[in-house]
Order: sequence, then C-alpha cells, then structure tokens
Amino acid sequence: MVKPVEFWFEFASTYSYLSAARVEDACAEAGVPLVWRSFLLGPVFGAQGMNDSPFNMYPVKGAYMWTDMERCCADLGLSFVKPSSFPRGSLLAARIAAAHGDAPWVGAFVRAVYHANFADDRDIADDAVVAAIVDEIGQDSAAVIAAATTPEGKAVLRGATEEALERGLFGAPSFIVDGAMFWGNDRLEQALAHARAA
Amino acid sequence: MVKPVEFWFEFASTYSYLSAARVEDACAEAGVPLVWRSFLLGPVFGAQGMNDSPFNMYPVKGAYMWTDMERCCADLGLSFVKPSSFPRGSLLAARIAAAHGDAPWVGAFVRAVYHANFADDRDIADDAVVAAIVDEIGQDSAAVIAAATTPEGKAVLRGATEEALERGLFGAPSFIVDGAMFWGNDRLEQALAHARAA
Repeated sequence: MVKPVEFWFEFASTYSYLSAARVEDACAEAGVPLVWRSFLLGPVFGAQGMNDSPFNMYPVKGAYMWTDMERCCADLGLSFVKPSSFPRGSLLAARIAAAHGDAPWVGAFVRAVYHANFADDRDIADDAVVAAIVDEIGQDSAAVIAAATTPEGKAVLRGATEEALERGLFGAPSFIVDGAMFWGNDRLEQALAHARAA
Repeated sequence: MVKPVEFWFEFASTYSYLSAARVEDACAEAGVPLVWRSFLLGPVFGAQGMNDSPFNMYPVKGAYMWTDMERCCADLGLSFVKPSSFPRGSLLAARIAAAHGDAPWVGAFVRAVYHANFADDRDIADDAVVAAIVDEIGQDSAAVIAAATTPEGKAVLRGATEEALERGLFGAPSFIVDGAMFWGNDRLEQALAHARAA
C-alpha cells in the first residue's frame, strides 16, 4: 500500500526551492500521492534557540550554501539568482499555500513563489508581489487572499506550524511518510522509496 | 585534465564514515586521483563559535541524524551501531592518517577506524584501540605510532587543520577539487564530476 509523501516547505528556505520544483513530477513518476504542507520555519528555529537563519548565524556555512545552490540549480536545470534579501518574510504566501493546500493550482502557486524569490529576486514579503503571482498563475488574487486571511484561513498555517513542532521538524524542506521524517532536498528519493515500501 | 579529489575527514564525524567507506572505489571508478586529508574538526567548529558537535548543540537535529545514519548505512550496505559515546576523541588516529597520508595502507586504516567507531562501538579515543587497529590491518603499530607522534609527525595534522581553516572548511566530510569545495557525503558525486570536468 503506497503512502503519501507530505512535503513540508517554507518559502524563505533555499533548499525547499529545489524540492518544490521537482516534487510533483517525482511523486507522479513514482506513483506516490503528494500532500503540500506549508509552514513557517521561524518558530521552528526559535524552538531550537535560533533567531535567524542558521546560514546567517554561521556565515562560513552560509557562503558555501549559496555556491551549493548555484551548483544544484544548474544540475536540475533551474534558474537561480541570489536574492538581494535573505531570508524574506513569507507570511502571506505561506497562508495562501496552507489555506488552499488542496486546490488544483497549489503546486503552480508554490513553484511560482519560489521562482519569484530565488530566480527573479522579487520581494515575496510584499503582499502586492504575492497578489501579482496569484494573478500570474490565472487565479483571482482578491478571492484567494481573502479566503487565506480570514481567522479560519490564518488558523490553517498556525496549526501547521504547531504540528511541525510537535512532529519534530527542525528544518525545511522535510518530508513525512507514514510517520517517518526525511530532511532536505537530498532525501526526496529516500522518502519516495519509503512511501512505495510502506 | 582530471584533477584529484582531496577528501577531508575527521574520525568523529558520522557522515565522514559514509564517504570513507566508498571514496576510494568511487574515485577509482571515475578515474580520479584521491588525496586523503585527515584533519581535526574541533578547531574548525571552535572558529564558528561552537564548542561541541552541532548534533549535540541542536538535539532535535541530532536525533534525526542518527536515524538518517541508520538509513544511509542500510542504503550503502554498511554496518552501523550508534556509538555509546559521541563525539569520540580522534587525535592519535588523525595524526596517523595525516602523517602516513601517502602510505599504501592509509585507506584500509581510515576505513578500519571508522568501522571501529560506528559499527563496532570501539573507543577510538583509546590509544590502545588505535594501536590494535593498526596491527589488524597488518602494519607495525609501534613503528607507525612512533612516526606519527614525533614533533614532525604531529606537525602534519596541525598544519592540515590550519589549512582547513584557511581554505574555509566548516564541516566534514568535505571534498576540495581544483580549489572548489563540496561539503557532505551527498556531494561526493558532484566533486567527482567537477574533477573530471576540470
């Protein structure tokens, strides 16, 4: 019995860009259902005593990360431009992806937000940029944002972030399959294999 | 012109075990020369303001690491037992691997030390255990240790650790190819590709 792969992502996370670009195709190819799980990494880092991205806290590691991103994007055929601001706030985009997690367009939205942040250096912390992205993928930004920012809409992202903490997530991207966690873009293949074997 | 892969490793490092087990075969298969570079991770972590393994500093991440090690070892067909002490001191073993880095038996020694630490839970911080390992790979432990612990022998490891800091290493395993750094067992294939393209 194939289990679904839950893809836990944060729009500010560099390595989540790599996974977001390929997870839908990879799951389809493996015959594994995909569940999009938008959450906020800030509270998860905070619970570990970190108040910034570890890539900013440890600059030597951070410098390497940007080089690694360039190489990994090249390997995957993905455009990449180092963002002029990092990490960017992702609240509205994360709320939309959480509240509309079952929408048929959620994958297109997620990929478009990552592309905006990491290939086009657009400021995804700006609500107007996020609204433009919703329109660009052919959806009605006013309606989409309204639904994602009602008290009920906001509660979806808050609940997901609390669930991430309860389930022991400590970074992004993470994959959860049948209760087992896999961390990092480099572990997507392990997660898929686990889903097929579960 | 194929460039060599410098394999920078620390015997206390879990993920270095994965690379140590496969780097010699992987280089041979790719037609890439291999250079063994033993160094100490403690001063490198210290330069980043860390006085312990990050896996101990961030326990949630550390717990995941052990699960990930189990899975990765299973994928590679490697024995694995979580060590009863972590991280273990590695000074004598690191001095031997540094001072005898060009010896034809250095690969066998490196693999045997990692196997002792991460498969057999032997205390590689104990000089008698290290001596036994040298004997087990068919070398004369008295002569090997004597050469590695002269002032000149000790200077090799000290110089390598200083070089690691100067070249921007921040963790292990790391690979350096033609001046480019690749971090982590997951990047061995990128390093090999870079060596063949250089």
